[in-house]
Amino acid sequence: MHYLDHAATTPMLPEVREAMEPYLSDDFGNASSVHAYGRRAKQAVEDARDRVAAGIGSSPSEVLFTGGGTEADNLALIGTVTKLRGNGNHVVTTAFEHHAVLHSVEWLGRLGFETTVLPVPESGVIEPARVAAAVRPDTIAVSVMAVNNEIGTIQPVREIVGAVRDANPRTLIHTDAVQALPNLPVNVTEWGVDLAAFSAHKLGGPKGVGALFLRAGVPLAPTMHGGGQEKGLRSGTLNVPGIAGFGVAVQIAAKEVHERIERLRPLRDGLLAGIVGIVPDAMLNGDGERRIAANLSVAIPGAEGEVLILLLDQAGIACSTGSACQSGAVDPSHVLLAIGRTKELANGSLRFSLGRSSTQPDVDAVLEALPKVVEQARRAA
Amino acid sequence: MHYLDHAATTPMLPEVREAMEPYLSDDFGNASSVHAYGRRAKQAVEDARDRVAAGIGSSPSEVLFTGGGTEADNLALIGTVTKLRGNGNHVVTTAFEHHAVLHSVEWLGRLGFETTVLPVPESGVIEPARVAAAVRPDTIAVSVMAVNNEIGTIQPVREIVGAVRDANPRTLIHTDAVQALPNLPVNVTEWGVDLAAFSAHKLGGPKGVGALFLRAGVPLAPTMHGGGQEKGLRSGTLNVPGIAGFGVAVQIAAKEVHERIERLRPLRDGLLAGIVGIVPDAMLNGDGERRIAANLSVAIPGAEGEVLILLLDQAGIACSTGSACQSGAVDPSHVLLAIGRTKELANGSLRFSLGRSSTQPDVDAVLEALPKVVEQARRAA
Repeated sequence: MHYLDHAATTPMLPEVREAMEPYLSDDFGNASSVHAYGRRAKQAVEDARDRVAAGIGSSPSEVLFTGGGTEADNLALIGTVTKLRGNGNHVVTTAFEHHAVLHSVEWLGRLGFETTVLPVPESGVIEPARVAAAVRPDTIAVSVMAVNNEIGTIQPVREIVGAVRDANPRTLIHTDAVQALPNLPVNVTEWGVDLAAFSAHKLGGPKGVGALFLRAGVPLAPTMHGGGQEKGLRSGTLNVPGIAGFGVAVQIAAKEVHERIERLRPLRDGLLAGIVGIVPDAMLNGDGERRIAANLSVAIPGAEGEVLILLLDQAGIACSTGSACQSGAVDPSHVLLAIGRTKELANGSLRFSLGRSSTQPDVDAVLEALPKVVEQARRAA
Repeated sequence: MHYLDHAATTPMLPEVREAMEPYLSDDFGNASSVHAYGRRAKQAVEDARDRVAAGIGSSPSEVLFTGGGTEADNLALIGTVTKLRGNGNHVVTTAFEHHAVLHSVEWLGRLGFETTVLPVPESGVIEPARVAAAVRPDTIAVSVMAVNNEIGTIQPVREIVGAVRDANPRTLIHTDAVQALPNLPVNVTEWGVDLAAFSAHKLGGPKGVGALFLRAGVPLAPTMHGGGQEKGLRSGTLNVPGIAGFGVAVQIAAKEVHERIERLRPLRDGLLAGIVGIVPDAMLNGDGERRIAANLSVAIPGAEGEVLILLLDQAGIACSTGSACQSGAVDPSHVLLAIGRTKELANGSLRFSLGRSSTQPDVDAVLEALPKVVEQARRAA
């Protein structure tokens, strides 16, 4: 099998498994317990917090552990905006955010907040001035993702932050950075954001763990109430083994990111060139340069993406059409529609996403299978 | 080391680790992906859903997976009450609920709902008529825990449901069942509740996984927005290995519950008798009969619980004072205050909670260490 769906989820790194191991067995304590078992569990959590902070360029006290990236995005947006209701009534985001952001903003709309969902240019790269132009005196928060999950385009987060700060220095800025690490060097301090969401399983860590970067001093209301863990901002027993694994995953992702980019870019470029050779009217979704090296999203005119991936699956190749989180649904990807693709082209798009284990034989397998697959899919359409 | 804090968290069962293994390695797919990796992941989730449903007496379609027990309690209460705002404005719970329930109800109070927090008798067993008497025509939901986490008392859930239904058949009934399995046979259908919260790590499953039983037809608004997993009621990538482990943990807990009760009761009774022999003025917290066999909560007059557990820890014994989720805090346990203990007795209480690995030598170790520990703690006070 050739797995080319690393943006949906990627295998756990062996180093991560090793780091989790003690906390799955002998050191099974609850990090809130005061006895030796609890203290060892707490130490593991704090070590992981140090590692995550070092990997994303924050202070450890600015890292909150959550149950995943979706929860981190929800907490960032709902937690700040409802907390700061008095300061304003307006939230800004973009039309191609992950649904964890988009649906949180929609929910805020249902709570009575005004929301602006910015259009996205065909490049899939948001222009900072467009964001700043939407910011008003009553804008509580802006949310723009760091890397798009479907088309892999990299957003100019630092420039967006600068433009938004000029427009309204009180507006908080959140970035969904779930697809950034391990494919982009991340430094939340250099970016200048107030909040950022991360997910462990996208970077070789376990599923069910995420983190929210919350800049010191940024007010936040919890969205989950209970035992008061994480300074009262995220209640619930800490997932000690998962958090320990996440820490190591971030550490490795940050260390390997440049080498990874250098290794994956030629593989990805070779895949694109091969696809265009086989399907001359294939169209790259999103900017060709300003995208992570691990992502290739292409529209295959005259074919259904669902049929393409099922045929590729039969040929031993795993990839996706639209984001994995939505592949159960039949609607065309909101990301591809946002960058101006027609419903047909959006439905006929494939996403190949590369990871640590990807090699030339994976690319070769796609290119070998594709001529017949595209022919069959076009005939079926 | 003698671990007697199984109510805080309990080691993962070897069978659970085995069930998780494939999904931590080769079968690492995202359950939302349509390719073979995704389908295997989805199958694991559905198998686990079947196991959880069988273990709690529900239909599989009535089980939603969450990131833990706290999230399940939050979702149950906030998700139903905010959804049904039009139907009423009132919520009822009890003063000795876990903070996941109590703080969710407080938060509903801040949203404008009226809340009634019922007092708890010294027995730690809620009287159904008292609950029913608090139910009004505008009561949207009632939440009463199945087993108290600190004193282990078992609530007459079925009778409470009957009394509440008589008072207002439209009122929804939630039970925090996090401490029920593996210590009590659970059947949500026999109980007749509409919602029930469960946590994997309390019954030999992994941390970071829980479930909400949601009776078919009960309306619920999601508290987490995103990719629309779990029928749109709980977004976020499913924690496939954790869920697979949870399924097996529930299956084993349900299978072993009677044998477990028979095995742990004499151990616990021996521990109590031994403690009373050493500390004649020790007082059992909560009813002596209507409690799970795994729990012993005793007040040691004239001693500080924090000092007692640190001294016991030095003697190689892990137990807790108050619930683990709060042991970082210095406030006396709200549970013990609720059953009428003075601040001093609440602060001087110890909780020993037994688990699958507990044996007579654990009990003997406590009884051997206790005379000196109590003497030292009383001198320090």
